[in-house]
Amino acid sequence: MAGPRPATMRAIDVIRKKRDGGELSSEEIQFFVSSYTADRIPDYQVAAWLMAVLLRGMSRAEIAALTESMLHSGSVLDFSDIPGRKVDKHSTGGVGDKTSLVIAPLVAAAGVPVPMISGRGLGHSGGTLDKLESIPGFNANLSLADFRRVLSTCGCALIGQTAEIAPADKKLYALRDVTATVESPPLICGSIMSKKLAEGIDALVLDVKTGCGAFMKSEESAVSLAELMVETGTRMGKKMVALITDMDQPLGNKVGNALEVEECIEVMRGEGPADLRELCLELAAWMLLLGGRVTSLDEGKRLSQELVASGAALEKFRENIALQGGDSTVVDDTSRLPRAKHKLPILSRTGGFVAAIQCEHVGVASLVLGGGREKKEDTIDPGVGIVVHKKIGDAVHAGEPLATVHYNSEARLSEARRLLEESYAVAQQPPVARRPLIHKIIQGTRYVEVGK
Amino acid sequence: MAGPRPATMRAIDVIRKKRDGGELSSEEIQFFVSSYTADRIPDYQVAAWLMAVLLRGMSRAEIAALTESMLHSGSVLDFSDIPGRKVDKHSTGGVGDKTSLVIAPLVAAAGVPVPMISGRGLGHSGGTLDKLESIPGFNANLSLADFRRVLSTCGCALIGQTAEIAPADKKLYALRDVTATVESPPLICGSIMSKKLAEGIDALVLDVKTGCGAFMKSEESAVSLAELMVETGTRMGKKMVALITDMDQPLGNKVGNALEVEECIEVMRGEGPADLRELCLELAAWMLLLGGRVTSLDEGKRLSQELVASGAALEKFRENIALQGGDSTVVDDTSRLPRAKHKLPILSRTGGFVAAIQCEHVGVASLVLGGGREKKEDTIDPGVGIVVHKKIGDAVHAGEPLATVHYNSEARLSEARRLLEESYAVAQQPPVARRPLIHKIIQGTRYVEVGK
Repeated sequence: MAGPRPATMRAIDVIRKKRDGGELSSEEIQFFVSSYTADRIPDYQVAAWLMAVLLRGMSRAEIAALTESMLHSGSVLDFSDIPGRKVDKHSTGGVGDKTSLVIAPLVAAAGVPVPMISGRGLGHSGGTLDKLESIPGFNANLSLADFRRVLSTCGCALIGQTAEIAPADKKLYALRDVTATVESPPLICGSIMSKKLAEGIDALVLDVKTGCGAFMKSEESAVSLAELMVETGTRMGKKMVALITDMDQPLGNKVGNALEVEECIEVMRGEGPADLRELCLELAAWMLLLGGRVTSLDEGKRLSQELVASGAALEKFRENIALQGGDSTVVDDTSRLPRAKHKLPILSRTGGFVAAIQCEHVGVASLVLGGGREKKEDTIDPGVGIVVHKKIGDAVHAGEPLATVHYNSEARLSEARRLLEESYAVAQQPPVARRPLIHKIIQGTRYVEVGK
Repeated sequence: MAGPRPATMRAIDVIRKKRDGGELSSEEIQFFVSSYTADRIPDYQVAAWLMAVLLRGMSRAEIAALTESMLHSGSVLDFSDIPGRKVDKHSTGGVGDKTSLVIAPLVAAAGVPVPMISGRGLGHSGGTLDKLESIPGFNANLSLADFRRVLSTCGCALIGQTAEIAPADKKLYALRDVTATVESPPLICGSIMSKKLAEGIDALVLDVKTGCGAFMKSEESAVSLAELMVETGTRMGKKMVALITDMDQPLGNKVGNALEVEECIEVMRGEGPADLRELCLELAAWMLLLGGRVTSLDEGKRLSQELVASGAALEKFRENIALQGGDSTVVDDTSRLPRAKHKLPILSRTGGFVAAIQCEHVGVASLVLGGGREKKEDTIDPGVGIVVHKKIGDAVHAGEPLATVHYNSEARLSEARRLLEESYAVAQQPPVARRPLIHKIIQGTRYVEVGK
């Protein structure tokens, strides 16, 4: 309607502008985000705007403004009094993706502080917090004061998002979840980067997953999200790198909360599966490089290997668990972790080679067993999960176990079993090409092709 | 998320499907609309869906399913006991667009029943209900039982949307209004057609406005909306026609509620401005043709002219006003209608020819004077408005009045005056081409070019 001009900014005009493909100003985005956080714009207007953003996209300048507005919707931590560059790692989530538990203590053991704010499981993907809380007594709900204390004492601290950190993201995320507006690269970027930049870090290593167990199924979409996040962080003065890594099958062999803690302890003992070991060393090396502790990636890898071999990483994990109220003897005796009562092997019907694993289904199987939440209110069963025995390319005989289900409830078993049976494809010939573990590395706008 | 399949339909899946450009099934649309009407889906999910519909569009089948679901969200009137085909007309709205008040009684006078459910003013456009209510005592809020009684007694009845008719539209429209999702042809079609088809009509004449005073500014968008509505009505077994008519300047000379009633009475007396007379005769002729009262459009026009000339149309209007509780002597003495206290002429600064009138601004000027509502709660001032003296192509001298403002409040005058002064463009030469009053006629998917 023409004529009388609105004296103040109005939510509907911001929605309309984005709907029609316009570029929102920083002021418009700031107005929209801060008004929503303060309950001055109703959910339904924000829902329409989110859908318009998802379908129309956002420019780099809009994404930066969005991230900035969300970041400043709450407290921004300042650890400048703690010496050294503060570095964190963030993964976009996958199945058996447990590297945080290894690399936070490992990097801290090298003297680079790691203030890590993590999330809970989401859909088929596990969450660092849920895994940590399977350690008896572990408290991931520290106050910001305790977070600081643990960080300055042992060099790493692992907590969940508090009410003070990026409250805009908390509200927006809850709304996106129920309005089918999760899968928007600008919104994902704003959500991840606002939370991470609020941690008071100087550098961030992103692990952007791609494949059938990732949220970004295609490599293209993973790369484009990684580029967005690297550029947004760089604009805000942070040292950034993103690794595009494989999630076409579970990472490591164990899926489920306590099972994954156990596997992390194995890796810190110099054991555990090769893919998980390799990715932990790679991510840790990048953190050490961005943190200024080493001058090359190779040096970072060597130092990481040494810190595992010397037991320093595991000792740091023990120290961290104790400081956060947990039973630190689990690092010596993993049988102290919760365990499921029953096990059931999933047997291969035919012999041949594993051609593919429907990775998302493996994650859902663990969720169904009680390892994740179908609704927010659900409680986690920490002991349940899946141990994968065969991965892509492995030879298998008819009747040989592909995986073992660790379960507590017969009622939940059948759905998980069906999912696992359906998720394995066995072929007569081994697969011709194998996907590399690390697909690409993105720094700034240039990126390096790696792997085959 | 793959894996466990939802046992029941979920709103989020319907949103996601439309978001991704999929075609919704009738069941999905029916589920969505009926669940929202019953408050089982929250506003924010519907808002996201509306934005997805606006940006992704809908197929003809989806639009039919949407219209059907909205139609059956409430009562569908059945006038099959009243003899003859029931016919209505609907206009998409404009400035000075007052034909309903003429053609409802005119067509009823020919023996074709007209059950008409109308709306209130919206933005810069006037509303039939607001105009009728400027007649002292007129009651547009009849119960459905009284609506039926008035219709069967005098052959036409004019009321507002009741709570029983298409409640889904009421909820959806209120939400669209605040989420910038009004301007979607599928949603407009569903909204209009569900209400109109609930009236228990057999045929519908659509007057789709195009030009600077219409909601559909471009001819293309008007034609495409008209085609959608004609096809949707035809699918549902209704006789349909749409006229694309001009709204590049006000229709007739009077804008404002009582002023427009007065001009309608002039037309029914065989007087009034030529453009309004012509459009009323054309629309009435189509209603008589679709209603089976005549066998050609020409016969319809001749019969309409006769019913005006004989005074039968005006008598029918008098009868209807009396049955709906109004002061029917206004048809003999229009000075009984409310009048504004003050008048101010808007003078032309230069001599020449009227080249253009920013029609929407004229509508907003009337709104600002109190003739419409800026907020839902506002009350209408029935006497205020604008009388247009010069229309496009008319010669004008410097200092001659272009229009006269009828106002009650000095405070509201200045904005209306500014809008009117700015809305007239006077040029040295008369305009080369004139837009025809009727641009196109659309029946089924074929349409006929008319006018120059």
